[in-house]
Amino acid sequence: MAESPTSSDELDDSVQFIYEPVTSELEQVVDNLGTLARQAQLTGDPSLLEHAIVSGGKKVRPAITLLAGGFHPGHEDVLITMATAVELLHIATLVHDDTIDSAKTRRGQATVGNIWGDDVAVLLGDYVFAASATYVCETGNLRVVRRFSETIMELARGELAERFSTHDWAQGVDEYNLRTYNKTASLFCTAAQSGGILSGGSEEETEALNQYGYNLGMAFQIMDDILDFMGTEEELGKPVGNDLMQGTLTLPVLLFAAQHPNEDVVKRLAAGGRDESDLKVMVDMVRNSPVMGETSAVLEGYRSRANEAIAKLPDARPRQSLEALTEYVGHRRS
Amino acid sequence: MAESPTSSDELDDSVQFIYEPVTSELEQVVDNLGTLARQAQLTGDPSLLEHAIVSGGKKVRPAITLLAGGFHPGHEDVLITMATAVELLHIATLVHDDTIDSAKTRRGQATVGNIWGDDVAVLLGDYVFAASATYVCETGNLRVVRRFSETIMELARGELAERFSTHDWAQGVDEYNLRTYNKTASLFCTAAQSGGILSGGSEEETEALNQYGYNLGMAFQIMDDILDFMGTEEELGKPVGNDLMQGTLTLPVLLFAAQHPNEDVVKRLAAGGRDESDLKVMVDMVRNSPVMGETSAVLEGYRSRANEAIAKLPDARPRQSLEALTEYVGHRRS
Repeated sequence: MAESPTSSDELDDSVQFIYEPVTSELEQVVDNLGTLARQAQLTGDPSLLEHAIVSGGKKVRPAITLLAGGFHPGHEDVLITMATAVELLHIATLVHDDTIDSAKTRRGQATVGNIWGDDVAVLLGDYVFAASATYVCETGNLRVVRRFSETIMELARGELAERFSTHDWAQGVDEYNLRTYNKTASLFCTAAQSGGILSGGSEEETEALNQYGYNLGMAFQIMDDILDFMGTEEELGKPVGNDLMQGTLTLPVLLFAAQHPNEDVVKRLAAGGRDESDLKVMVDMVRNSPVMGETSAVLEGYRSRANEAIAKLPDARPRQSLEALTEYVGHRRS
Repeated sequence: MAESPTSSDELDDSVQFIYEPVTSELEQVVDNLGTLARQAQLTGDPSLLEHAIVSGGKKVRPAITLLAGGFHPGHEDVLITMATAVELLHIATLVHDDTIDSAKTRRGQATVGNIWGDDVAVLLGDYVFAASATYVCETGNLRVVRRFSETIMELARGELAERFSTHDWAQGVDEYNLRTYNKTASLFCTAAQSGGILSGGSEEETEALNQYGYNLGMAFQIMDDILDFMGTEEELGKPVGNDLMQGTLTLPVLLFAAQHPNEDVVKRLAAGGRDESDLKVMVDMVRNSPVMGETSAVLEGYRSRANEAIAKLPDARPRQSLEALTEYVGHRRS
């Protein structure tokens, strides 16, 4: 599925449109991250934290906080603080994930564990988790602080569930949904909901934003699942079908296994087999089967519900960006 | 240095005296930990969190919170909540420390990493960190919540400093003091100070408790340093001089090195040598030198200042327990 230059240009335009209302606020988030890295007073290599923080990324989550807080202007400072916390939390999870996965690179750059060792990566992740929690306290809003702590618990719970469910072919879509909420959607919920709370939105608005975050987060993860099968190794930075090869059973795989319980390969894997050639056959069967289309339909459902959730919010620039983000999540390539 | 039965009995009596005013509150802390373990809904082995939490320990830190809050009775519920958070934070650091050190056992029990693997241990530690932060939010006191987050940052900073300073013979006592504050005394400060804040103590009382925590925490770590050289392998559960063998330069070692810069072994190690026989010779030289007495004198100084800090607080039962704890820290064997 090679992309034409046109669609790529369109994607770039769409990204620019999404971020446009909060460009200067996002720059301040990036400034905050840089300041933290410089002031951290971590003994050892001074570039340690900077390395973890500056590794980039699209800053989707902090942008959601800023956009969700944009319906009631005048609260930019506290929103920037919150958005910084949200991005720091995301960075902390990446540092620990890379350590657990023994990943050597992320976005083309060597990981912290690769350069300084896993022990340092564990501790640096702890430090960034704590820094994120300290930033949230600066909002002065105890409800947001509490929700943030719960989110960290949910993130860990989701990652643990993923670990414990590798190669577990008895799991169903319910279990997938729960761990996907914990692992991915929880932080999207918190990013969106906190924007509502901190900008003084009503309970109804805040709940609408929470629902937006939930559905967008689920869609985001399912798009990841799809890209793992549909992208090229070059786009993904990892082999096609990598999740399945590692034993992580994503939505298309679970749908396929449920529909083909008597397929020989499925039976062998379900019986505890971990044969690499079986897993490779399974990757090819899944990517060439109708479950990819069915998974896309599930993704579309989440995207529709994300936009429905915020349909009652004012049809102003922040909502247009959030809707464009929903659109983007269904077409992103990485 | 075998202990006579009499002194051992005296220590037991002293421990009983310390905990006596807060016995029922500490039981509720333990109940809270058990409830959390049961309700955590961590997919996988249900005994996972229970294993980490029930691994015991003396509960010194939560006892400090409860005792520090005992000068103004009537705030038991919020103090129990805070004490639970303090113990959870301590447990989280132990889970990550054991992972980083690849420790196979703690207090005679297999570590989480040993049973379930390092990846699970990293995530479980994250979960317990987050659970501790969520508990603190239940106090409803934003000042305490903020201080708690900063403490997690300081803990990580201290551990990182220890990692980066292994085999670094250029470090001085100032660096030792800073990392010992971060690694150990910070949580003692927070345990004591939060008791004052949450029981409605004055700023003066709260600062006195903070100073008590600082000095007690520094003394606690220095006693650890001494025990590493003076205890027997049976008492310590690890080889004598283990810190130095691993490259961690504790107070007695730094004092010795500063006084004997021209000793051949010191010169070789300072030049980057890590020869195991050199390190063993160093262990023997340190443990048989006057620096052990000098280290004890530094310890005594911290213990005196701990008691001085709370001398202005009412001479009531909580203060007597805190003073007895100071006494205990100078005589503990493990």
